[in-house]
Amino acid sequence: MSQPDFSMEIQISFGHCDPAGIVFYPNYFRWFDRCFHTYLLKTAGGHRRLCRVLEAQGIGLMDARANFISPALDGDLMTLEMTIRDWGHKTLTLGYLGRIGERAVVEGTELRGMFVRRDGRLRAGEMAPLRALLDAGLPDAGQA
Amino acid sequence: MSQPDFSMEIQISFGHCDPAGIVFYPNYFRWFDRCFHTYLLKTAGGHRRLCRVLEAQGIGLMDARANFISPALDGDLMTLEMTIRDWGHKTLTLGYLGRIGERAVVEGTELRGMFVRRDGRLRAGEMAPLRALLDAGLPDAGQA
Amino acid sequence: MSQPDFSMEIQISFGHCDPAGIVFYPNYFRWFDRCFHTYLLKTAGGHRRLCRVLEAQGIGLMDARANFISPALDGDLMTLEMTIRDWGHKTLTLGYLGRIGERAVVEGTELRGMFVRRDGRLRAGEMAPLRALLDAGLPDAGQA
Amino acid sequence: MSQPDFSMEIQISFGHCDPAGIVFYPNYFRWFDRCFHTYLLKTAGGHRRLCRVLEAQGIGLMDARANFISPALDGDLMTLEMTIRDWGHKTLTLGYLGRIGERAVVEGTELRGMFVRRDGRLRAGEMAPLRALLDAGLPDAGQA
Repeated sequence: MSQPDFSMEIQISFGHCDPAGIVFYPNYFRWFDRCFHTYLLKTAGGHRRLCRVLEAQGIGLMDARANFISPALDGDLMTLEMTIRDWGHKTLTLGYLGRIGERAVVEGTELRGMFVRRDGRLRAGEMAPLRALLDAGLPDAGQA
Repeated sequence: MSQPDFSMEIQISFGHCDPAGIVFYPNYFRWFDRCFHTYLLKTAGGHRRLCRVLEAQGIGLMDARANFISPALDGDLMTLEMTIRDWGHKTLTLGYLGRIGERAVVEGTELRGMFVRRDGRLRAGEMAPLRALLDAGLPDAGQA
Repeated sequence: MSQPDFSMEIQISFGHCDPAGIVFYPNYFRWFDRCFHTYLLKTAGGHRRLCRVLEAQGIGLMDARANFISPALDGDLMTLEMTIRDWGHKTLTLGYLGRIGERAVVEGTELRGMFVRRDGRLRAGEMAPLRALLDAGLPDAGQA
Repeated sequence: MSQPDFSMEIQISFGHCDPAGIVFYPNYFRWFDRCFHTYLLKTAGGHRRLCRVLEAQGIGLMDARANFISPALDGDLMTLEMTIRDWGHKTLTLGYLGRIGERAVVEGTELRGMFVRRDGRLRAGEMAPLRALLDAGLPDAGQA
């Protein structure tokens, strides 16, 4: 498998889990979103800076899905890897893989757009300027 | 479109929304899950009772996805409709549609299994007994 | 006890509960906040309208506390009552009581301020204009 | 100030923040809880192990409060420190301090009990056995 573009560790805690004792599934999507935003922070100064520079409202979701491969429990340490799968004209596709050691826990994708306000409505803008900023990084990289 | 099997209203609140002022997307999955569990409660006495009767650990997720059609804001009242799409041998497919008035906001699906403990591992059990209990309902329906 | 200023029902669901099978406690604070915001919506058109009229950034928290009296479980229907306890010069004190039938579950308070941006910093503004708007209500009350 | 008993870092993310652009306050309580559970994990193998050894249902909340001193934003890195304030006969008082650099953001306390099932009801058990396990730590410390 190819090298992920970003990865982080999630320490699974009691409060992430449901009465069945396993992670309550919407939390995986919270972690996908957190992983993407942490990537933006470390790579290009964060979502707020990027939106200011690009005059965008947000880099938000069009579609998300996840496949829950095996359960994760309180005390597990999950490694969450993010891969940039595809830059479309007005879309960005991100792939995620969460694993505990070698065991795959969750696999998912997010389809994101960059929303700009035009004529009083939110519309999907072109992704090229965002891609350029992410590729360029920051001179003093990493702080918002 | 066919009649939903269950529907509920979600009053979108400040705390559901992110700095872009729209619903933070993992909340939609929390509401899908809540809608399904409320359906179980109203139809057959709830998840805990069903698991006790069926000797199951939980009726959990194998896969989930959502398509975010238009944004929802603090103050919006969303109607969330759930439709039983398909009973498989060991799966249940649920469809969701969230709308504010006539405007579609989110459309999604959950693929669920019924997990039973066998030989010390969680495995997907057969769905027929769950389906029978949901079809039968409760004599004095609706309370856990 | 005096009549509450607002009340709402919270249907406790599976996803609100932790591996001990009871409500994960931060959810009570989410419900306190939701109760206050729903009160603003029903009484005066909601937080966003009030902030626009009052040129405020938000009606946010200075302090919050809760006492967890008895556990609540998946399937329980909790009635959450909110009482305006005190209007200070720059503060608003709200009291909450959550109960399932006659059984008290949680009791808490929020101390809120109205934050305005002045000289580039968030500061607590005077509460009198907010109080006046809440007392006046809306001509066609209830919609944001 | 005295040395904290445990501390961890919280990377504040977009999804933790509300339409005012600052952390939605119930998240601070989620982080208090997560800090305590991570402390249990690192010190004594985690909440699940402790409950098994002590025949307890959970080490849960009786009371919680927080004072919100200054706002935290997307991109901020918060250091959260936990201090064991007091061991009572049937209670444990924990103090928390969250800060971004030298700036205090939140200060709070949790009052916890250890709940045991006796005569079919949840009751507060004695804390001495829990304290002894935390003081002893694990021979091969740190893994659940």
